[in-house]
Amino acid sequence: MKIINTNDANFKEEFENILARAKTDIKEVSSIVTSIIDEIVENGNSALKKHIEKFDKWEVKEDSQLQISKDDMKKAYENIDEKLKEALHIAYNRIKTYHEKQLPKSWIDFEKNGTILGQKVTPVDRAGLYIPGGKAAYPSSLLMNAIPAIVAGVEEIVVCTPTPNNEVNELLLAACHICGIEKAYKVGGASAVAAMAYGTETIPKVDVITGPGNIFVATAKKLVFGEVHIDMIAGPSEIGILADSSAKPKYLAIDLLSQAEHDEMASSIMITIDEEVAKQTSIEVENYLQTLSREEIARKSIEDRGAIIVASSMDEAIELMNEIAPEHLEVMTTNAFELLPKIKHAGAIFLGENTPEPIGDYIAGPNHTLPTGSTAKFYSPLNVENFLKKSSIINFSKQAIDELGEACALLADTEGLTAHAKSVRVRLEDN
Amino acid sequence: MKIINTNDANFKEEFENILARAKTDIKEVSSIVTSIIDEIVENGNSALKKHIEKFDKWEVKEDSQLQISKDDMKKAYENIDEKLKEALHIAYNRIKTYHEKQLPKSWIDFEKNGTILGQKVTPVDRAGLYIPGGKAAYPSSLLMNAIPAIVAGVEEIVVCTPTPNNEVNELLLAACHICGIEKAYKVGGASAVAAMAYGTETIPKVDVITGPGNIFVATAKKLVFGEVHIDMIAGPSEIGILADSSAKPKYLAIDLLSQAEHDEMASSIMITIDEEVAKQTSIEVENYLQTLSREEIARKSIEDRGAIIVASSMDEAIELMNEIAPEHLEVMTTNAFELLPKIKHAGAIFLGENTPEPIGDYIAGPNHTLPTGSTAKFYSPLNVENFLKKSSIINFSKQAIDELGEACALLADTEGLTAHAKSVRVRLEDN
Repeated sequence: MKIINTNDANFKEEFENILARAKTDIKEVSSIVTSIIDEIVENGNSALKKHIEKFDKWEVKEDSQLQISKDDMKKAYENIDEKLKEALHIAYNRIKTYHEKQLPKSWIDFEKNGTILGQKVTPVDRAGLYIPGGKAAYPSSLLMNAIPAIVAGVEEIVVCTPTPNNEVNELLLAACHICGIEKAYKVGGASAVAAMAYGTETIPKVDVITGPGNIFVATAKKLVFGEVHIDMIAGPSEIGILADSSAKPKYLAIDLLSQAEHDEMASSIMITIDEEVAKQTSIEVENYLQTLSREEIARKSIEDRGAIIVASSMDEAIELMNEIAPEHLEVMTTNAFELLPKIKHAGAIFLGENTPEPIGDYIAGPNHTLPTGSTAKFYSPLNVENFLKKSSIINFSKQAIDELGEACALLADTEGLTAHAKSVRVRLEDN
Repeated sequence: MKIINTNDANFKEEFENILARAKTDIKEVSSIVTSIIDEIVENGNSALKKHIEKFDKWEVKEDSQLQISKDDMKKAYENIDEKLKEALHIAYNRIKTYHEKQLPKSWIDFEKNGTILGQKVTPVDRAGLYIPGGKAAYPSSLLMNAIPAIVAGVEEIVVCTPTPNNEVNELLLAACHICGIEKAYKVGGASAVAAMAYGTETIPKVDVITGPGNIFVATAKKLVFGEVHIDMIAGPSEIGILADSSAKPKYLAIDLLSQAEHDEMASSIMITIDEEVAKQTSIEVENYLQTLSREEIARKSIEDRGAIIVASSMDEAIELMNEIAPEHLEVMTTNAFELLPKIKHAGAIFLGENTPEPIGDYIAGPNHTLPTGSTAKFYSPLNVENFLKKSSIINFSKQAIDELGEACALLADTEGLTAHAKSVRVRLEDN
């Protein structure tokens, strides 16, 4: 694995390349995705069926075949291995407990003059979850997207997942059963996003669409934003690791590889202040690579997009990491907690040597749907707020409008809005 | 003003029309805005200058002329009328107090097995506020956009506003002074949004862009979403009023007009259960219309997009209003508070006869930047969270990974991710 040093003459350039690589350019597929969306808006189910035949290679004879039955979910759940069932329940419960702590309350506040101000928190009516399917079916994605919606109190949750050759992953079905999903559909890609954004004869129009997906799904989410809300536009997975001399190279290596194995486009970057740790980790990466079932993918990712950076101080290391704003950040130092105040941008932060990133993918509790490509500078992990929205509450008493009304009308006057001013003054005249 | 009844044979159709009218179609301007954004990305300041010459009709001779000086802000503040100054300070303080109540705290939580989970809340580094300028310069918009960013703790706030003929509204300058704005630029429209999203030689790249604007600004915000975060895509202003027989028609009428005067495309809809209130309000609207400085705009809005609906029950009225999901909702009934549980979708809710909507525009405290066109079904009012983002915190102890690691590795196995599983098991082997 490539090792570079912040003192290298061309370091700045190398680092700019690392940052640039993380960006996803959705322009290239925009026109294809736009026409897919237009087709769904115009032709609804019949367009969906056409896309399923083309991409998933099976023929939908009746609309009812689009839906996955609750019975199939139940059967799948009953058939899975007990150990796995237990693991899914542990994950479900821990994820639920964590997200319950995120739930904001409506609040209200009173002033002496009789003014009442507040904020009402309400779940959206309908949420649409996009869950990748086929070979890369991730039941954990279903848990991570459905549970925040359930905790938020969303009444109707819609799931869409592609089913190549009309096959649904059994574990995904089992996870749907555990989450009590009522409405799941065998629709994938940009078509699924369009169907949930605009509705078809079978698939309900939702208010919010969340969930991971390839560049077509990400682009569709961007294009329907405004018609519905979305969580974020996410690209390939990333890990950043901050390490000092106390970090164990074999842990660092396998953790770097845990993201590299996702995708050739995944990015694994370690910044360390210890040159020896850098060297040893690079050696361990090569050792582990040869043992992986997804060696080819991981190797390409590490070669094209991986890097170990040797920094001259932990402050410099953190500054660079804040620029990267990685999806996952592991802090493998003796004083991991004490570095938190300086860490500004990261989707999820994993502290200490017993917290490998995969712990957060499955079982810790926090969401694994996280911002990528430096967007942790402004996006948050998927959370219950993605399924809620707020309304301001304002109640003025006679006394309150008497006290504040004229200042309000004056400001309206200066903006040339006479009806605004008058609507206040007509009350003042009556009081 | 047109009165329709939910019992009318064609009511459903009429109501669908009302809902459809509220939608903004940004498709028509997308290609123009795309090329404006591309120009700014390619040519930076020189493109900005070209656009200013074209749209704002003045020549920018040097880059430094793009910036509004802090001195000009101070002078403007010193020159305004004392009453108005006081009104601005009252507004500033009340808006600040309200938004401080929205500020979420980082939190952390401990488990017996040594697990630590939490959520770190961090402000974005840079926020960009778009403030409309020229004839429709609204100093209140500056307060409403800047204060949540200030409360969130954003270190660098950038303001862009168009300056036709190189003139800046004095009150907007004064409001900038009150908010302590350091970086304000004379750039408007889609160019300003593009400049803040991608940065130019003079204008810093920001992380979040908020603020109102015309269809070009709204479209630009949608197009740069993903490169930066945005608050929402907003269209013309709206008011919905729920009224029973206790409501005063003259209040209802002037409140309907307070939105109609904003824009010919603004929408003012009242739903009442009292036919007499409907009739009297319609008469009062006509009376007031003749007194307004913006009569022409307000009349066109009321005629084309206004409606009074007579419903057969308050439940039916609320159900229809939830479908509309208005930007502003006034509840003018005897039991306004008791209706709150049933009201699901509205940007801001104004309760009782002493709370006309303009109170919320200027002085009450809650934000006046609100979702329009039914998007209150999923967007929230502008708030401090728009300027914050979260990072999950995860720390596992030896005991925690011993207890939960195997369940985690098992789930990774089923998803075919061997490096994920190995990264956990290599720790278990060591423990």
